Amino acid sequence: MDFVFSQATRGLTSSAVREILKLTQGNSVISFAGGLPAEQFFPVQAMRDALNRVMDQGPRALQYGLTEGFTPLREQLCARMARKNMHVTPDHMLLTTGSQQSIDLLTRVLLDKDDVVLVEDPTYLAFLQVLGSAQAHPVKVDGDEHGMNLADLEAKIIKHKPKLVYVIPTFSNPTGRVWNLERRQGIVDLCRKHGVLIFEDDPYGEIKFDSGESFPSLFSLAGSPDDSHVVYTSTFSKTVAPAVRTGWVIGDKRIIGMMTRAKQAADLHSSTLDQQALYQLLCHFDLDAHITTIRDEYKRRMKLMYSLLSEHNIPGLTFSEPKGGMFFWVELPEFLDAEAVLKHAVTEGVAFVPGTPFFAQEPKRNTLRLNYTFADDDTMVRGMNTLANVFKHFLQTK
Amino acid sequence: MDFVFSQATRGLTSSAVREILKLTQGNSVISFAGGLPAEQFFPVQAMRDALNRVMDQGPRALQYGLTEGFTPLREQLCARMARKNMHVTPDHMLLTTGSQQSIDLLTRVLLDKDDVVLVEDPTYLAFLQVLGSAQAHPVKVDGDEHGMNLADLEAKIIKHKPKLVYVIPTFSNPTGRVWNLERRQGIVDLCRKHGVLIFEDDPYGEIKFDSGESFPSLFSLAGSPDDSHVVYTSTFSKTVAPAVRTGWVIGDKRIIGMMTRAKQAADLHSSTLDQQALYQLLCHFDLDAHITTIRDEYKRRMKLMYSLLSEHNIPGLTFSEPKGGMFFWVELPEFLDAEAVLKHAVTEGVAFVPGTPFFAQEPKRNTLRLNYTFADDDTMVRGMNTLANVFKHFLQTK
Repeated sequence: MDFVFSQATRGLTSSAVREILKLTQGNSVISFAGGLPAEQFFPVQAMRDALNRVMDQGPRALQYGLTEGFTPLREQLCARMARKNMHVTPDHMLLTTGSQQSIDLLTRVLLDKDDVVLVEDPTYLAFLQVLGSAQAHPVKVDGDEHGMNLADLEAKIIKHKPKLVYVIPTFSNPTGRVWNLERRQGIVDLCRKHGVLIFEDDPYGEIKFDSGESFPSLFSLAGSPDDSHVVYTSTFSKTVAPAVRTGWVIGDKRIIGMMTRAKQAADLHSSTLDQQALYQLLCHFDLDAHITTIRDEYKRRMKLMYSLLSEHNIPGLTFSEPKGGMFFWVELPEFLDAEAVLKHAVTEGVAFVPGTPFFAQEPKRNTLRLNYTFADDDTMVRGMNTLANVFKHFLQTK
Repeated sequence: MDFVFSQATRGLTSSAVREILKLTQGNSVISFAGGLPAEQFFPVQAMRDALNRVMDQGPRALQYGLTEGFTPLREQLCARMARKNMHVTPDHMLLTTGSQQSIDLLTRVLLDKDDVVLVEDPTYLAFLQVLGSAQAHPVKVDGDEHGMNLADLEAKIIKHKPKLVYVIPTFSNPTGRVWNLERRQGIVDLCRKHGVLIFEDDPYGEIKFDSGESFPSLFSLAGSPDDSHVVYTSTFSKTVAPAVRTGWVIGDKRIIGMMTRAKQAADLHSSTLDQQALYQLLCHFDLDAHITTIRDEYKRRMKLMYSLLSEHNIPGLTFSEPKGGMFFWVELPEFLDAEAVLKHAVTEGVAFVPGTPFFAQEPKRNTLRLNYTFADDDTMVRGMNTLANVFKHFLQTK
């Protein structure tokens, strides 16, 4: 039987990186590759209590739910959003299977073949995959550590007439950078002026290391959700647990309504057991105190990785200290290819993600991403020792 | 802000029916519209036990999972499939957010704009919606109560060169019909001969009223899963509970592999909390005994609705007794439009689904679908009384 797949699958080809990382599964490879939270901090007892409270509701808790998601959880999330100056009602919100599904649904309702989307470069690799599947084209906007270059943004809006600008302004994946207020206000103003939709992806906003610092969301800067040109998505994966696969997306009701129809065709609705459990968790568990705990711990782990990266004193290695999120973005000397380094590193027992798949255009092959949230101290020290030796090996054999 | 939606959204326009049925929510309307299981029979205690067993596993249970789904659950499902002569390994299987997501993922990896899919007519309305979103075209194959007409099937394969034939051979939605063995073998042989993929949707196969009767799946008739031209999907929504949103799809590894990549872009993976709970449930709960219980109860409810439909003795109303599944398919006298009847019925306090949206071509506007699994006896008697009066009202005012 010959199978003829759709054109959409051409953007779905398995990457070399995924194939290499598959080798790490089930082995004793220390992985700095995934964006995995620390398991020790998952609120297991609170989740157990929450699930039992859901079961206390009786059989109705196990029935089909609304495509939009469990209403009491949407109400709770509206209250949490309001604390960040995002004033929405449940009608502006759709619950999804993680924020990855928000990305997929928004691209499905907006993008046609050959549409252009402006992106940071590097940017979240799974967003680029979704664009590939939609046969849409990412075009990079120049930027620096403070965010997109606003002049380049406007020039590219005029040149490419994009349907969408996709950004992760707070602790971006993979670079960990944070946009300053001027750039935030600037993108909001420019996109309003030119009638371009902004998709603000904020999975890491809660994982900030300086609790005094405040980074207003683009969504809040854009004002009322009605007629807003910003769509915002976030997730419980990093603050509660990934297994419950619950994200949310907020925006103008016309956008959310269309995404809801697309979701109805895609899967009717996400797990309402998970959504009800998260509702009970928010009612009976101090999620904010929990977030403070994991912030402190992730900051400590980040500092440990920073000192390990520094101590090994590898010539030509550059990186900067992230202000939040889950990753270091590392540049090797220019003559090194991080995919080749990865291949060797995996045989030595340590893994990371090479930078190439995060680039929309002209990849810097000498870059890589390191996660610091998953490994405990001992594992991190061993893994970074191995990795430093791998780097040194490549520098010596040059 | 003007939003320009993608071409794919043109297939997602909200139906008149959905708008009418929205009116029933939160009201005292008795609904025979949805395909909802009876809540009284949800295994609440077993699910609570299962969830607590998952939490006993510790924090790892809350981490990210495989896109393919929780491996021990796939292994359990392989064993269950083997009892029905479907011999697969976990590599042939992908867990999805209900079987609706299997439909969505398969169409995404197979169908391009203007591709043709052969269907029964009427067929599952949400499949037609997904086709609309893919901008693919359903073409109906003639049939009778025993399944598709094989001569018409072959003629249309030759004429339209379809990518796919979509069928629900066992207790179809909406008609409740069951294909006989000759038609089952016939479609498998014809599609093999012409190199056409079959998508077998089997949400209701376990809900059969004559336990002695056996209906082999098309997948089992096609032989080995490797190089098979049948892809099969089913779900726990009707046998355990819809809230856990867990379906599965099996087929040739190339198809399953490509669907897995599409799923990774769509949502990374479905809720592993649900998948782990279902695994624990299968280990510690007699699901087969449970299925026997709900079969018996649904058969009793079906018989009650049958007798109520008969007793009211409505001129020109035709229907036949289903051998399984969840629905009666009813034809009104030809001059009646079921959508107009629904509008009035809702104001009288009872709802159903008109037949029109189930048709790929030339809808019979005098048809409707009635669910008999959700309402308890008292509710069903009251609802059917009201509905009979509504029918009589329309017959009198003719």
